[in-house]
Amino acid sequence: MEKWKDVKKVVLAYSGGLDTSIILKWLQTELGAEVITFTADLGQGEELEPARRKAEMLGAKQIFMEDLREEFVRDFVFPMFRANAVYEGVYLLGTSIARPLISKHLIEIAKKTGADAIAHGATGKGNDQVRFELSAYALNPDIKIIAPWRDWNFKSRTELLDFAQKHQIPVTKDKQGEAPFSVDANLLHSSSEGKVLEDPSLPAPEYVHLRTVSPENAPDKPTIITIGFKKGDAVSINGKQMSPATLLTELNKYGHDNGIGRVDLVENRFVGMKSRGVYETPGGTILLAAHRAIESITLDRGAAHLKDELMPRYAELIYNGFWFSPERKMLQAAIDLSQENVEGEVKLKLYKGNVIIQGRKSDKSLYSSSLVTFEDDHGAYNQKDAAGFIKLNALRLRTLAARDRK
Amino acid sequence: MEKWKDVKKVVLAYSGGLDTSIILKWLQTELGAEVITFTADLGQGEELEPARRKAEMLGAKQIFMEDLREEFVRDFVFPMFRANAVYEGVYLLGTSIARPLISKHLIEIAKKTGADAIAHGATGKGNDQVRFELSAYALNPDIKIIAPWRDWNFKSRTELLDFAQKHQIPVTKDKQGEAPFSVDANLLHSSSEGKVLEDPSLPAPEYVHLRTVSPENAPDKPTIITIGFKKGDAVSINGKQMSPATLLTELNKYGHDNGIGRVDLVENRFVGMKSRGVYETPGGTILLAAHRAIESITLDRGAAHLKDELMPRYAELIYNGFWFSPERKMLQAAIDLSQENVEGEVKLKLYKGNVIIQGRKSDKSLYSSSLVTFEDDHGAYNQKDAAGFIKLNALRLRTLAARDRK
Amino acid sequence: MEKWKDVKKVVLAYSGGLDTSIILKWLQTELGAEVITFTADLGQGEELEPARRKAEMLGAKQIFMEDLREEFVRDFVFPMFRANAVYEGVYLLGTSIARPLISKHLIEIAKKTGADAIAHGATGKGNDQVRFELSAYALNPDIKIIAPWRDWNFKSRTELLDFAQKHQIPVTKDKQGEAPFSVDANLLHSSSEGKVLEDPSLPAPEYVHLRTVSPENAPDKPTIITIGFKKGDAVSINGKQMSPATLLTELNKYGHDNGIGRVDLVENRFVGMKSRGVYETPGGTILLAAHRAIESITLDRGAAHLKDELMPRYAELIYNGFWFSPERKMLQAAIDLSQENVEGEVKLKLYKGNVIIQGRKSDKSLYSSSLVTFEDDHGAYNQKDAAGFIKLNALRLRTLAARDRK
Amino acid sequence: MEKWKDVKKVVLAYSGGLDTSIILKWLQTELGAEVITFTADLGQGEELEPARRKAEMLGAKQIFMEDLREEFVRDFVFPMFRANAVYEGVYLLGTSIARPLISKHLIEIAKKTGADAIAHGATGKGNDQVRFELSAYALNPDIKIIAPWRDWNFKSRTELLDFAQKHQIPVTKDKQGEAPFSVDANLLHSSSEGKVLEDPSLPAPEYVHLRTVSPENAPDKPTIITIGFKKGDAVSINGKQMSPATLLTELNKYGHDNGIGRVDLVENRFVGMKSRGVYETPGGTILLAAHRAIESITLDRGAAHLKDELMPRYAELIYNGFWFSPERKMLQAAIDLSQENVEGEVKLKLYKGNVIIQGRKSDKSLYSSSLVTFEDDHGAYNQKDAAGFIKLNALRLRTLAARDRK
Repeated sequence: MEKWKDVKKVVLAYSGGLDTSIILKWLQTELGAEVITFTADLGQGEELEPARRKAEMLGAKQIFMEDLREEFVRDFVFPMFRANAVYEGVYLLGTSIARPLISKHLIEIAKKTGADAIAHGATGKGNDQVRFELSAYALNPDIKIIAPWRDWNFKSRTELLDFAQKHQIPVTKDKQGEAPFSVDANLLHSSSEGKVLEDPSLPAPEYVHLRTVSPENAPDKPTIITIGFKKGDAVSINGKQMSPATLLTELNKYGHDNGIGRVDLVENRFVGMKSRGVYETPGGTILLAAHRAIESITLDRGAAHLKDELMPRYAELIYNGFWFSPERKMLQAAIDLSQENVEGEVKLKLYKGNVIIQGRKSDKSLYSSSLVTFEDDHGAYNQKDAAGFIKLNALRLRTLAARDRK
Repeated sequence: MEKWKDVKKVVLAYSGGLDTSIILKWLQTELGAEVITFTADLGQGEELEPARRKAEMLGAKQIFMEDLREEFVRDFVFPMFRANAVYEGVYLLGTSIARPLISKHLIEIAKKTGADAIAHGATGKGNDQVRFELSAYALNPDIKIIAPWRDWNFKSRTELLDFAQKHQIPVTKDKQGEAPFSVDANLLHSSSEGKVLEDPSLPAPEYVHLRTVSPENAPDKPTIITIGFKKGDAVSINGKQMSPATLLTELNKYGHDNGIGRVDLVENRFVGMKSRGVYETPGGTILLAAHRAIESITLDRGAAHLKDELMPRYAELIYNGFWFSPERKMLQAAIDLSQENVEGEVKLKLYKGNVIIQGRKSDKSLYSSSLVTFEDDHGAYNQKDAAGFIKLNALRLRTLAARDRK
Repeated sequence: MEKWKDVKKVVLAYSGGLDTSIILKWLQTELGAEVITFTADLGQGEELEPARRKAEMLGAKQIFMEDLREEFVRDFVFPMFRANAVYEGVYLLGTSIARPLISKHLIEIAKKTGADAIAHGATGKGNDQVRFELSAYALNPDIKIIAPWRDWNFKSRTELLDFAQKHQIPVTKDKQGEAPFSVDANLLHSSSEGKVLEDPSLPAPEYVHLRTVSPENAPDKPTIITIGFKKGDAVSINGKQMSPATLLTELNKYGHDNGIGRVDLVENRFVGMKSRGVYETPGGTILLAAHRAIESITLDRGAAHLKDELMPRYAELIYNGFWFSPERKMLQAAIDLSQENVEGEVKLKLYKGNVIIQGRKSDKSLYSSSLVTFEDDHGAYNQKDAAGFIKLNALRLRTLAARDRK
Repeated sequence: MEKWKDVKKVVLAYSGGLDTSIILKWLQTELGAEVITFTADLGQGEELEPARRKAEMLGAKQIFMEDLREEFVRDFVFPMFRANAVYEGVYLLGTSIARPLISKHLIEIAKKTGADAIAHGATGKGNDQVRFELSAYALNPDIKIIAPWRDWNFKSRTELLDFAQKHQIPVTKDKQGEAPFSVDANLLHSSSEGKVLEDPSLPAPEYVHLRTVSPENAPDKPTIITIGFKKGDAVSINGKQMSPATLLTELNKYGHDNGIGRVDLVENRFVGMKSRGVYETPGGTILLAAHRAIESITLDRGAAHLKDELMPRYAELIYNGFWFSPERKMLQAAIDLSQENVEGEVKLKLYKGNVIIQGRKSDKSLYSSSLVTFEDDHGAYNQKDAAGFIKLNALRLRTLAARDRK
């Protein structure tokens, strides 16, 4: 391919699935390039070893495999949850937040192996191509990025399958027909899009859901858990300290069993169109509620409101792929500073899709029952101060009303 | 009382309850002022006639009673829901939004009757005094505002009850002891605060809840409803057109029965302290989910994201009592402009506390399955455009990376 | 040209200069399309008739010429100045704001004449291509847009000139060599970029400036003028009512003569790189200062601060070409609402680059000397109110300090 | 005075002037408290020794004097200038930024001396009382704060002077009449308010100005200077390294001599009214222009625009007295992060009120003439990328236009 004729060595983000297997072959045949594969365990719930065997079989020159679950949760998911980030009111950014991590490793492997290019299997219509590539460019401005879905000449699924057959790429039975929807998954969430989900006026079939039982099928008895926080991050469940990935895995189980974290949405992609997705974020949904609850007693109003105002922009940056941008880092610096004293425990009731706050407590609590009480507060608060407070807050409004009356 | 010695006629926001009954008497005895009462039906769920009789008995010179439910929902609740307003991530502003409406009527009645002052029963520790007074001042800069809770000398509940007894103010049995918590209610929500709720580490007792059954006690079978929208406002349920207040009343029933809309929170008051509340917003919770869903297919991304960024500020303004401020009106103008084409229908499943989107459709939909499809899109979208899009978005990040590498 | 093979009729934004003349010919020869030219008077300071003759000579099928100065100032410049829009702290958006107007007319003419495409002479590196095209697409989603600078195969200025010569396109002597910098001009401003200006460490040569004398060469005696405002727009100078374009023309003279409105900047383009420009906005610079001054006495603080917070986003939208986007319109609705009472007069001293406020007055003034006076204010303001105001504003900070001390 | 009856020892912010001298005496006579004075050199341009002698004479128990100029510029002024902070478009916050520093020292001295209260001489109408007190409360939640202007019973200037006479407080001749305006000054600026300035329709008399010659009286010959930056802070003038306060002092001279930094404004006070002021910030005005210029080549667009959007809020926080609030610190963290590479040199021409950028250069420059050039860029930028960039940015607008056409 003329365009990539100088490329000698490519690091491919390889899942072991049909599409990236075709890409692995295509890069060799079409570009004549050496291919190095990188397969990461992000908690997508698949074993990695089959991917290794397949990569070997398909001619990969070097194979990198890594368990990134702890790095993923510690350095990407948790910082994002400090911000209470939600995109367009509902989406917890489960796919968006994984992409920069993969790019980081692709770039590192490229450096280590002297590769001049990286490649990914994201299509030209989605957000993921943007996230992969912006992240990669931000880490290595000279890297070449190959997105075969944008470049190759396959015109139909049939042509793709023909190519696969021709190059002895194994095609599992269920892939020979069309998958009924497309899936992305990691430790934070799974997303399902396309095909049977393309009509937003129809509900998602139950079988689309991968990470949760339905609220209807969840147990009739609530589950009570307590999450402990330190510096804004969850550190324990029911008093037991856990590593970030262990903790999120555990929360995912609680969420799964109690039908928590399903979202059916239509979102606005960065590339300009609307798309419909069904997302499941069982543990994340619990975590968000718990984090807001611990913040509610440990965060000052000024910090809390500033966070709320900055959040939509922060979420948009992550959604659009700007994790490694200066502006995301600036916002992160502000957010992280606010989390210093966000610690304590939140008790939650999980019940058929609901995450219900049962209590929060903290040594760093700013809640003062002596200030707020309807009872005698022994002078903690002077109600007469309120008169002056209101008078001065009203002054400009009164001046305005007097003017406008004229 | 020296401070109010010039006051001759006061319009009192009168609920008929013990506290405002004491105020009604106190204004007469302490200030020597004529008192006019105003009692409004905001959907709080109490009959108004007993209040009339009580006001008469306690010496009110004129009695105004009005059913404001339609005005409340049409001119206050619905405009606020166009903004998807949520305070501190969870509170739907059910109390906040009612206060400016009451002030508006107090000021109108003051004008009509030649009264020089208004009075309200809000305490000096809460937000409501601020909301009442900022609204009143914004509508009449010269109005005098009497907040007896800040001014009188009663030092304990006992002294208050003595005053009541002395002036033959009826005290119902349950008021002789202390109420176990304090309630505010209207068509949008009920809030419970204080006393048994003052310890935020403990769950709210079930009996605190007034507007909803618990998710646990809600039916095992989901309810499906369809809400129709026009210009951003809900106009129908299951195809049946309804007035704003009728519609919200209806949604409240659905919410009540299905355990929807409970929130247990610690919030930051404008007057500076944190308080803990249990709020129930059954219909509003359904409405918010439905409105976001219909916006998701009818609102352009630019408009949607701008709304999301402005929302926290807008919600804060309402919470703090600035409904009649120029900046709230400016934000409203922006928001309302965006709602022109927010119309269509949203189907929802209500189930044990959950509001689950089942589908959305609109003649004004911006969702295009031909754009987003994984299938052949017949040229609706050229995947190659994405390469240029990414390249230019990446340019500044690459320049930065090249600089920082040096 | 394969890409545009279906194009039959193109409306070209035609300036009469060498570049768009080459495009006029190229569209005919390369695409075989009929070309309609559109030349607008935006106050760029050139006669239009020569452009007509040239267009005729070069084979234009239809020629549209229009004086858009009033529309430009009334519907584009003035709404923008209501926002006090400044990009990156210094740029008054003089070029940015003209582009959507031109696109609007191109689209209208395309409709009128049945053309299926429009064309412009902006290069592929600049912002103007983006502004032209986003505006055009927002007004007609099906329009085809030809940007020859991105498409043609000329590889050097020599090749371009060869093409010109071959097609008997007149090339003025000074164009045979390279122009020392590139210019855009309209009634609001002129901008100079490129070539001699490419090194941002060097000052701009004096001859680059087109619209202003230097402060050094401006008169030693100040000029005093008074600008009258109504609903946020300037309507008079020295008491004389003027149409928008007449007024801006007049202000430009004042600015020119007094060395006002020069800016030498490095800006961030939407397409991703930094560029250096020398801009002159003589009248606009005066107008901005005057508008802020009249707002300072007629705008409430809440409105003023909200405007200041929204402004950078608003300016960015205009800079990036999103004039016709829903979010720009939303912001405009908010801004326009605030301007209802922005009226009165501002007196200014113009002196060697300075615009110095000499006074402002308004029947709608919110300034009250009786409130602010150090003298006895006769009870307009009760200083004791400040104590309560501060106490409650401090409450959260004190709570925080008490917590952090622990 | 009943209200302060428990106060035993007060630290007074003492200027040595008539007002704080009266306060010094009043605190002793009225409260029976020991008074400790604190007088700081913030660059207000007055000698401190006379204040010491006066304090001794008037019975101060302890006298603290300190030169805070370096701390002021390093820890308050410079961090603020990193943000390009401007309040309401014109005010460089010269008074606002000094108040938290004074409070910090008052609180430190109170701790050291075991004082239970602090006192200041700000009136009940202004912003300074708020700034002093919010800062003090944020540093010591239990401190008592005495603001005699809000508390004492003097009803007129005559009564004040009688008190002074009675207590043998020296009153200079010019103070016996009324000062024609009120002044605050420090190393960053001087402000003049009140009396002759109370009518905003009239220009300020020339004699009001204290820190600058008028542009008219400035030299006819421009002065050229070069300011060097490191991590966003100015570190040198004309290549000579200087400490923060030395540098600002030096810039003040340049500004003074060239008529730079005068502002005549009407501003919105936090306490609710508008006030008119004449401010002079000679060095700060130069510094702001220079800082923006060095940022223009060293700051990425994303960082720069985020800073511009956050700035109005940041400036408002400082103006309102929230320097020690969590939200100001959060914004500062974001801003400071952005300044890491803001270094290099800016050359400026100072001429009769103008600060004219002559050039900027930096080893960390992000400006690339090879990217931006109109000449052949040897492939640094592919113009064809712009087509895809525009197409995807336009997609949502086209979808919208197609919908709205229906």
